[in-house]
Amino acid sequence: MSSPEIPDIVIRRLPVYLRTLRRMQDLGIESVSSEDLGAHIGVTAAQIRRDFSYFGRFGKQGKGYDVQTLADGIARVLKLDRCWDVALIGFGQLGRAIAHYRGFESNSFRIAAIFARNPDHIGDQVDGVVVMDEATMHEVIPEMGIRIGIIAVPADSSQSVADRLVDSGVQAILNYAPAIIRVPPHVRVREIDPTSALQSLSFYLDTEGQPPDSVFDTSMLPGMTEPRR
Amino acid sequence: MSSPEIPDIVIRRLPVYLRTLRRMQDLGIESVSSEDLGAHIGVTAAQIRRDFSYFGRFGKQGKGYDVQTLADGIARVLKLDRCWDVALIGFGQLGRAIAHYRGFESNSFRIAAIFARNPDHIGDQVDGVVVMDEATMHEVIPEMGIRIGIIAVPADSSQSVADRLVDSGVQAILNYAPAIIRVPPHVRVREIDPTSALQSLSFYLDTEGQPPDSVFDTSMLPGMTEPRR
Repeated sequence: MSSPEIPDIVIRRLPVYLRTLRRMQDLGIESVSSEDLGAHIGVTAAQIRRDFSYFGRFGKQGKGYDVQTLADGIARVLKLDRCWDVALIGFGQLGRAIAHYRGFESNSFRIAAIFARNPDHIGDQVDGVVVMDEATMHEVIPEMGIRIGIIAVPADSSQSVADRLVDSGVQAILNYAPAIIRVPPHVRVREIDPTSALQSLSFYLDTEGQPPDSVFDTSMLPGMTEPRR
Repeated sequence: MSSPEIPDIVIRRLPVYLRTLRRMQDLGIESVSSEDLGAHIGVTAAQIRRDFSYFGRFGKQGKGYDVQTLADGIARVLKLDRCWDVALIGFGQLGRAIAHYRGFESNSFRIAAIFARNPDHIGDQVDGVVVMDEATMHEVIPEMGIRIGIIAVPADSSQSVADRLVDSGVQAILNYAPAIIRVPPHVRVREIDPTSALQSLSFYLDTEGQPPDSVFDTSMLPGMTEPRR
């Protein structure tokens, strides 16, 4: 059912469009031009029209989009028009925070199974979902028909958890572990990695008035021509 | 000091390389080939060599990379060879979790100022950092020379917070609010948005055996040719 010819970057933008349109609906806005929608989101009108062109027509040229039709259409393209059961692996501090997080679009995703390694946590409950032993993943996940997994375990066990998720039939993984996991081509991964995000931001900062630590020799900044031995 | 000709996607990969190399250092590994490094990270050796080519030479062809030299070199390129003060805006459930998060590379980033709107939270402390009134941002941030901000406020106030951060001299923003914020070109933003990540993953799932809710008409999946009125 997926359309491999649609660039992933377009797919990544659709949730942002959807969120903006749902907010417009809440405000009673019924119709919007690609210019106005773009202005709200911070992309050009041309970009929006190009993105939507992958999905046939969402509205009539020059007439603007019907907000609800467009929102429902995007939700349908993203397959948010049903409820997906999600398996959460890891029930440490991060896992617990995710289990209690209410920000996932409540109608589309439901944490239906939670797995922990620590015996102290097995048997705990979150909203009626009982935390199970990680060792039962490969039985429970296929039985429940779960296709989405959230990894919230330490970096060094993230790959083995990913392998077991894939073996259990999971096709999409949201990875909170600070590690890159390798999966077969039919499985999609998104990373939630604030440390890397922060580290890739400092690259862009002015260093004026911010002396580096003396441990480092910065005479060769920004590129080094020879490795130090 | 920044090098605008280096693609942002390369900059985003450097923290991943760095983390892998630091782990190798911990394991006592002194030298690594681009093949081995690539295998650990899940990218090709050619990709790694191409990425590093932007920064001059990090190692000698055929001899492999010295792990520490390479790690220190990447840290220097990312300007992680100093400690950056960070301002955290928002001290609700999410803001508090971020304030207590110990995963940011501790030597490179330090939450040095916390701002809240709710008077109940002003005066609270996290590791000796006192939570201040959001209204004082524009004075405190320039005074402290802070260049990085973390936004952890609700979506509807995220743009106004971003505007005030930019006015206060912030050049890089990590945005946890579920909204796209607009900033001038000299400011960089990274989003931490698990809901959008999840919503862009379901697109790729098999829908076999997962009937959509009856509210939706899926007869026109995947693309609609006409908007519904």
